[in-house]
Amino acid sequence: MELQLSQYHPVRFVDVRLEGDFWKERLDTVLKTTIPSQHKKLGEYGILESLKLPQPPPPLRFPRHANGFTVQVFWDSDVGKWIEAASYALSHRRDADIEAKIEAIVDDFEKAQEPDGYLNCWYLGHEPEKRFSNLRDNHEFYNAGHMLEGAIAYFETTGRRRWLGIMERYLDHIRSVFGPESGKKHGYDGHQEIEIALIKLYHLTGEKKHLDFATYLINERGKQSPHYFDIEREEREKKGWETQRYAQSNYEYSQSHMPVRQQTKVVGHAVRAMYMYTAMADLAAELNDAALKAACETLWNDVMITKMYVTAGLGPSAHNEGFTFDYDLPNQTAYAETCASVALIFWAQRMLHLDLDGKYADVLELALYNGALSGLSRDGEHYFYANPLESNGSAERWAWHTCPCCTMNVSRLVASVGGYFLSTAPDGLAFHLYGGISAKREVAGTLVEIREASNYPWSGEIKINLDPATPTRFDVKLRVPGWSKGHSIGVNGQAVTADAINGYVTINRIWTKGDTITMDMPMQPERLYANPGVIMDVGRVALKRGPLVYCIEEADNPGGAVQRLKLPRDAVLKSTTRADLFGGAVTLSASAKAIDPSDWHDLYRTSPPAESDATLTALPYYLWANRSRGSMVVWIPEA
Amino acid sequence: MELQLSQYHPVRFVDVRLEGDFWKERLDTVLKTTIPSQHKKLGEYGILESLKLPQPPPPLRFPRHANGFTVQVFWDSDVGKWIEAASYALSHRRDADIEAKIEAIVDDFEKAQEPDGYLNCWYLGHEPEKRFSNLRDNHEFYNAGHMLEGAIAYFETTGRRRWLGIMERYLDHIRSVFGPESGKKHGYDGHQEIEIALIKLYHLTGEKKHLDFATYLINERGKQSPHYFDIEREEREKKGWETQRYAQSNYEYSQSHMPVRQQTKVVGHAVRAMYMYTAMADLAAELNDAALKAACETLWNDVMITKMYVTAGLGPSAHNEGFTFDYDLPNQTAYAETCASVALIFWAQRMLHLDLDGKYADVLELALYNGALSGLSRDGEHYFYANPLESNGSAERWAWHTCPCCTMNVSRLVASVGGYFLSTAPDGLAFHLYGGISAKREVAGTLVEIREASNYPWSGEIKINLDPATPTRFDVKLRVPGWSKGHSIGVNGQAVTADAINGYVTINRIWTKGDTITMDMPMQPERLYANPGVIMDVGRVALKRGPLVYCIEEADNPGGAVQRLKLPRDAVLKSTTRADLFGGAVTLSASAKAIDPSDWHDLYRTSPPAESDATLTALPYYLWANRSRGSMVVWIPEA
Repeated sequence: MELQLSQYHPVRFVDVRLEGDFWKERLDTVLKTTIPSQHKKLGEYGILESLKLPQPPPPLRFPRHANGFTVQVFWDSDVGKWIEAASYALSHRRDADIEAKIEAIVDDFEKAQEPDGYLNCWYLGHEPEKRFSNLRDNHEFYNAGHMLEGAIAYFETTGRRRWLGIMERYLDHIRSVFGPESGKKHGYDGHQEIEIALIKLYHLTGEKKHLDFATYLINERGKQSPHYFDIEREEREKKGWETQRYAQSNYEYSQSHMPVRQQTKVVGHAVRAMYMYTAMADLAAELNDAALKAACETLWNDVMITKMYVTAGLGPSAHNEGFTFDYDLPNQTAYAETCASVALIFWAQRMLHLDLDGKYADVLELALYNGALSGLSRDGEHYFYANPLESNGSAERWAWHTCPCCTMNVSRLVASVGGYFLSTAPDGLAFHLYGGISAKREVAGTLVEIREASNYPWSGEIKINLDPATPTRFDVKLRVPGWSKGHSIGVNGQAVTADAINGYVTINRIWTKGDTITMDMPMQPERLYANPGVIMDVGRVALKRGPLVYCIEEADNPGGAVQRLKLPRDAVLKSTTRADLFGGAVTLSASAKAIDPSDWHDLYRTSPPAESDATLTALPYYLWANRSRGSMVVWIPEA
Repeated sequence: MELQLSQYHPVRFVDVRLEGDFWKERLDTVLKTTIPSQHKKLGEYGILESLKLPQPPPPLRFPRHANGFTVQVFWDSDVGKWIEAASYALSHRRDADIEAKIEAIVDDFEKAQEPDGYLNCWYLGHEPEKRFSNLRDNHEFYNAGHMLEGAIAYFETTGRRRWLGIMERYLDHIRSVFGPESGKKHGYDGHQEIEIALIKLYHLTGEKKHLDFATYLINERGKQSPHYFDIEREEREKKGWETQRYAQSNYEYSQSHMPVRQQTKVVGHAVRAMYMYTAMADLAAELNDAALKAACETLWNDVMITKMYVTAGLGPSAHNEGFTFDYDLPNQTAYAETCASVALIFWAQRMLHLDLDGKYADVLELALYNGALSGLSRDGEHYFYANPLESNGSAERWAWHTCPCCTMNVSRLVASVGGYFLSTAPDGLAFHLYGGISAKREVAGTLVEIREASNYPWSGEIKINLDPATPTRFDVKLRVPGWSKGHSIGVNGQAVTADAINGYVTINRIWTKGDTITMDMPMQPERLYANPGVIMDVGRVALKRGPLVYCIEEADNPGGAVQRLKLPRDAVLKSTTRADLFGGAVTLSASAKAIDPSDWHDLYRTSPPAESDATLTALPYYLWANRSRGSMVVWIPEA
């Protein structure tokens, strides 16, 4: 069956200029603060030092650094991801200092690389004889993937090919050991990621071997009897190398419990899952593979109908950093790793471009403004790894983490966020996100200057200017978000009546210089209820306005834990733009009831607590935990 | 300051015959099923095998048994605790088979004991050179304590002294290495327990050295600069022995963060804490130590006002198996280890006998009927280690555990539960618990036959017969539980008006053969509310009747997760004796509201769920998880 794929392709972030206040602030913070501070942390916590080979003898398996951190098998990936984020930053503003820091890292990697091309600093520094003996647990391919993405980004920004060359030699080596051919090991990655990087490299170089290797990895994954992870485990056991370090060795954990095209339920480690689905969607398009696309759609529905937090957080459990069972969405203990929401954005973008269906853009937007953005503090140098939906006040953003994956995932996302706004097709231009951008792209053979101005996500009033070089007919597709309860569109002041089909209004006409489109989607606060299967949210309500999910935080609701507040079902929700709050956030407020703790002395008593009138003020979730420590709730009890 | 201590002492369980249905059933189950099955499990899981020294070379540090369990440093204690429970069982009914099994274990211990008296099978089997190098983590004193309690119980039941002699030699050795004298190590146990055992041994033998060593351990604990656990850690580091096996090495974890008399907040591992407080209360009485008693009272208030589950479960966190911060009492993730509630019973009993204040007996009773008893299944061979107050249906009793401490704690408790009912003083007799017992004790110089008949905890109608050998004046103290909202008392049919003072009604008169006391405490279902500081329970209510806390379980409330049910505040609670349910349990039922899940397709939507009328049926908490798997809630949302 030949797939009917959308002809739309994303406009790259380097071709989209962010002009709206919302994303300009985040981008500035990431460029000025986050990227440099992340390099500093990579130094302080011994991560850069771990690349300097040979490591001093004796090669300790888990040497402790002065700060108490131990060398981790995945640190190469964090360096790779920082280079990727920093390279995206350089696309915005060149910076000799940052470039020198990247070059110094490349020097270390170049020195560390073995003559045969192998390059993994953890193995080379600690157990060189054991390389490629434990793909299940030890992240060699995962690291290579992130290093490769860093190398691609750095090359694309600076034209410098040294780092990319190092990675190409490493890939040549990997392909000399692994692959479908007889005589090679039929292994694949325990932590999926490299597939995405390989497809990027294929797009960059056009070399089919990279696409083929990504295809091999996806096709080989989950084959049974014997399972590759069992083969390599048995080899380790023979050599006395097997350790019990990782308890998570069940196949579901790494989505290798069955061939990917047969998978129908989302299981295991959330970030592994999302990276894999992203690659599957990429390959569905590249290979025109209907089975792969169908698997992606089935898995997508499974997440959306039973497993996603209202913030687009994924993975309720810290135990496996991942998925458990349907409707298991605890709030206070939600893991909802920042990386998983970032990776959901990647997957959603791929799905969106298979079908150009707004349901994917809705999730992309939800994850962007909530589950992913909540991972980065306002000051740009504090992070959440887990993103709970309730806190007793103990949750606090951290300055660094023994596993810093989320830090660079959110910086690379923000530094390239412009890449999610627009797509073009031979005969059309699609707007997915709004918030103030400009771009210049060829559409239907003519160069079009594009400008979208809005105060999104605070307002749904959008204004678009199109300046084609010559008057040209093409589709303009405007996404009408799922949250919109009614939209009005005008072209050059003339109302256009058009329903959204699959989430997009399409305007086909001959566009001329100076054409203006206006779209108004009134943003009203709304109440969301969870499926009663989500037992944690029974009797509770979440607040949302536009794409932003709200929470109540103690800083805005002083007087004790916010868990004491109840929101009557008929209370009117009022929106207020607060110039004093995070540069103009819109808060929601309502009359509420508060439990009165003042007359309590015992832990338990037979008379119910008194209630008093109160005002409840809600803040966008992504802004929480940026002031003093305090309690927070997304799902508010309804009175 | 001389302490004014209560003159009451518990009547030992061997002198109290259980005659009421409730405890007869539990005792029979433990004698017939639990004790023999626990021995079987000790065999199946390699625990008995681990006592057989020498272990086959090479001595693996963590050998895996066929069943996947690894040898644990605390297994000696589990064997000791089983001998204790089995010996209590033998007090009820001698059993040659069980006695032979104990003798076989004693053979192994005897063979394992070193010439100098040292006896720890884990160290001897695996790292003999490292003995006493890590009291912080490796349980040597803890094991010795439980082995000693087993030896005392076995001696008291059978008169056989061999096992006790082995333990006395081991204690001599311990005291030759550790103690306050210069030249000895000033160490103490990382897991408190041995103090309780030493005081028991002092009571048995009258040898003051055992009391002195217990006193030393309590007095030495928590001294700083240097802290003993640092001294031994530094020695391990010098020898290259320090491992990172235990992350829980902060002083609070083992309540060694400051001298015990200065401690005012309950912290750390819950079972360690409760065992220590038990010993502190014991020593307060033995040493007439006002500071120790005051510390116990301060710590008691801290638990009661901020840290105890409504079920008398203790320790909200699995992370440290213990305490966190005030009012942190999550329901679904409650750890509330069975052992901690059992140990709370020990502590409460000591506190009760310092002051004879019913507030301690209330907690003893609450822990007994709820947090502790919930740890043992109806069939007597399945267990809960953690006792959550809410379940999504995944919680299930297990047949065995890699750390089987709770299994034998609950069996030794039930096998000796008669010991919590009565106390005597030179001039009085006190009834703490009710439920049908008989005993024969000397009070005020005369032998009194005592019989208490009731259907407690299902009914508050109590009938007591006293047959003194000769007419004698003495106090009879009847505990009026804190849950009672009004009691009526009669002596030989004549009403007696008497208020309870500190939880006890005192009747002083000349008692004559055939005297009868009746006490009626009507048991009404009641609603309990939690202090609003317990944010998890805001808007929720717990149900209680007499000493029993109730829960709603899916087995009694079919149609989906019980979390869908809400109890209107004005709904009448009806008690029903259910002959069909666990031999006559009393259930509570009420009209309720149920969320209707039938019209849901999405995960989230903007319209609230529909509600329908329903009936809610609640079951005593200790009986949950004895039928099919399903959801359970203690704290029910109130509509």
